[in-house]
Amino acid sequence: MPRVSERAFIAETIAIGSELLVGGRSDSNSLFIADQLGESGIEVRFKSIVGDYRPDIVTAIQTAARRAGIIVMTGGLGPTIDDCTREAVAEITGRRLNRRKTAFEGMAARLAQWGRTPNKGQLRQALIPSGAVVLPNSVGSAPGFALSWKQALVMALPGVPREMEVMMVQEVIPFLTKRFRGLATLPRQPIRRSVFHAWGLSEADIDTKLHGLIARGTPVDLGLLASPMGVLVSLTTKLHHSVGRTVIESLEQEVRSRLGEWIFAEGQDTMEAVVGRLLSKQALTVALAESCTGGLIGHRLTQVPGSSAYVDRGAICYSNRAKTDMLGVPAELIARHGAVSREVAAAMARGIRERSGVSIGLSVTGIAGPGGATETKPVGLIYVGLNGGVGESLSKEFRFHGDRSMIKQRSSQAALDFLRRWLIDREIE
Amino acid sequence: MPRVSERAFIAETIAIGSELLVGGRSDSNSLFIADQLGESGIEVRFKSIVGDYRPDIVTAIQTAARRAGIIVMTGGLGPTIDDCTREAVAEITGRRLNRRKTAFEGMAARLAQWGRTPNKGQLRQALIPSGAVVLPNSVGSAPGFALSWKQALVMALPGVPREMEVMMVQEVIPFLTKRFRGLATLPRQPIRRSVFHAWGLSEADIDTKLHGLIARGTPVDLGLLASPMGVLVSLTTKLHHSVGRTVIESLEQEVRSRLGEWIFAEGQDTMEAVVGRLLSKQALTVALAESCTGGLIGHRLTQVPGSSAYVDRGAICYSNRAKTDMLGVPAELIARHGAVSREVAAAMARGIRERSGVSIGLSVTGIAGPGGATETKPVGLIYVGLNGGVGESLSKEFRFHGDRSMIKQRSSQAALDFLRRWLIDREIE
Repeated sequence: MPRVSERAFIAETIAIGSELLVGGRSDSNSLFIADQLGESGIEVRFKSIVGDYRPDIVTAIQTAARRAGIIVMTGGLGPTIDDCTREAVAEITGRRLNRRKTAFEGMAARLAQWGRTPNKGQLRQALIPSGAVVLPNSVGSAPGFALSWKQALVMALPGVPREMEVMMVQEVIPFLTKRFRGLATLPRQPIRRSVFHAWGLSEADIDTKLHGLIARGTPVDLGLLASPMGVLVSLTTKLHHSVGRTVIESLEQEVRSRLGEWIFAEGQDTMEAVVGRLLSKQALTVALAESCTGGLIGHRLTQVPGSSAYVDRGAICYSNRAKTDMLGVPAELIARHGAVSREVAAAMARGIRERSGVSIGLSVTGIAGPGGATETKPVGLIYVGLNGGVGESLSKEFRFHGDRSMIKQRSSQAALDFLRRWLIDREIE
Repeated sequence: MPRVSERAFIAETIAIGSELLVGGRSDSNSLFIADQLGESGIEVRFKSIVGDYRPDIVTAIQTAARRAGIIVMTGGLGPTIDDCTREAVAEITGRRLNRRKTAFEGMAARLAQWGRTPNKGQLRQALIPSGAVVLPNSVGSAPGFALSWKQALVMALPGVPREMEVMMVQEVIPFLTKRFRGLATLPRQPIRRSVFHAWGLSEADIDTKLHGLIARGTPVDLGLLASPMGVLVSLTTKLHHSVGRTVIESLEQEVRSRLGEWIFAEGQDTMEAVVGRLLSKQALTVALAESCTGGLIGHRLTQVPGSSAYVDRGAICYSNRAKTDMLGVPAELIARHGAVSREVAAAMARGIRERSGVSIGLSVTGIAGPGGATETKPVGLIYVGLNGGVGESLSKEFRFHGDRSMIKQRSSQAALDFLRRWLIDREIE
């Protein structure tokens, strides 16, 4: 167990809801809470998830209070009978639940905006443990609350993401700031997390390239996380350690320098946004010719607001005939080399560029599996083609493993990265 | 704390990884684990998440062992230095870590398939606590293990979702089945969870339609969970309650009857798979004309293995010129009604069908936002068109809210559901 003084700034989240246990959906609320708290210098070290079952909520609060000074609960404050967070907190802390005037009035006012009056279930939402501070909910009907118990500060928020998010920003963070202002006994500082997204290197390759990056004793963690979209590299400062801004910045620079163009994005940035900015900056337009990715590249590029300025069109040419009809790929070229070949990828890229009149044609053809492999062409064999209007199309072969969905993801990433590198080279020239 | 006999069948998951705490990604592994265990009659009641920090992993294991009989850990078995699940388990259970021959050989064989030999980090992956059973990993390099400690069975699996999933099915479930065969002291029965996916009705509409479904005292929970893809309706039996199969089946029938064709899929089934089966059964082919969805419909349909049998092609016609070039939509039609109009949606569907020679043309045009709205055409206005070769195109207007990504998702769902209902009607006729 951590020491008390340290524990005050260790946080635990408890997400409550049976749908978070089985077959429903994963808890993303706690990620938002951890980010918000981290920026205030409070480290979420533990996350717990329990169902809408009062004894389990009680156990979770007990456990959290042993190891964390700040406990943020989400969920179980709704109007239905299975919502029992209020009751669990009252039980373990020995407080009574009373209908609190401020809680009731806030809720009634909110419902009145929607032309409704509180029903019996909603009236329960105004019940607050005695001595707790009410945390108003400006976007939904359930107020939250905060109370001190043992050495922990226990806070309860609704589980609806939008409500929880607004309350974290408008209520919880100001509340904590006020509460801890006089308590500056620890050299608290925000947890800083720098994230880099790399593509084209394995986790092991990156591990080798970053060997010895962080000197022994520097309280910064290096994290590597592989996914079909590449490897996420993170540098995270440890709380309660003094790490100068320059130390972090020089580590960031070192990561950039060691990984170079393998890094395609940083922080919240995405491959599709990066490619979009490069296209915009160079005033170029793109058209796609997708076979095995089936539209995924188009979908990704058009996730970016404003992408209609540089995405002109795409041809999802799943059948061979579609490759001929839509892109003018000669049927005999397909017959000679097969639809999954460097030659066809190149012809697809040229075809879509010429037919659409854009600056760049980008193509992908491959075998996403599980069927479709031949003796010489395994599942995961992918060709990317790029035609920029000058000279022949460029093309590149990739061999991926994984299931159909992973191969589609990797293929889309490979194609976008190929375009990204081409755009960067063009910029430099 | 639960009684021992009961505790044997209570499970806790522990997901390990600093990226699961701050700003990274939510833990979805534990959902898969809970579903798998639930089908075997083992209830996941608690989920914990900790970072790659040995003392916190130790605390999490201690806590879990107090309240659960089965502990499934994921993550922290990788080759890098921050992976310390093995060491944490060894520490708390007082076992030594030894390089286990079976673990090493399995890993070496796996790497050899990829033409590699184990590096120093990967050699660490063959370290297994003494007395533990090795759980082979047939898709990745890190083996897992299982051991008994106090009254709990502690299992460690890799955090890579694909590896964890294969190991749950191939190793963990058979291991548990074997282990508990002689232990039928509890009236264990699988937690049964029936899931229905509905589109086109709000959560409130469904709540009303399902009012009074479950009689008081029946130990079955009704859950509703809204997302941009529709509403997930679930019926979940509570463990340790006797619920006859007929009770569940009649509740399922009642849900089907009350929600009718609003239900597009059940269980793990998806809209794209349902549409694919309907197309296959009727030996029909489809071609897409996507504007605001940017390829998402094509991507979704081609996620289904074997979809090349019925997906011929798609035109991502983001620009107006692309609508004219690729689909033959008259420029004056676009000028008169606007690209986002019922008329253009209908012309797009006919255009792609006629040009591709498929059975059905399916189109979407709309304003995904945040830009692009006009006085009469708000963000979220979507038209779907369908042309089946006989008569005029059908079309339908939708008005969605949400951000760009949600509107794209909803639009793709609306288009696929429109096609699904058309295929069902055609089947009936």
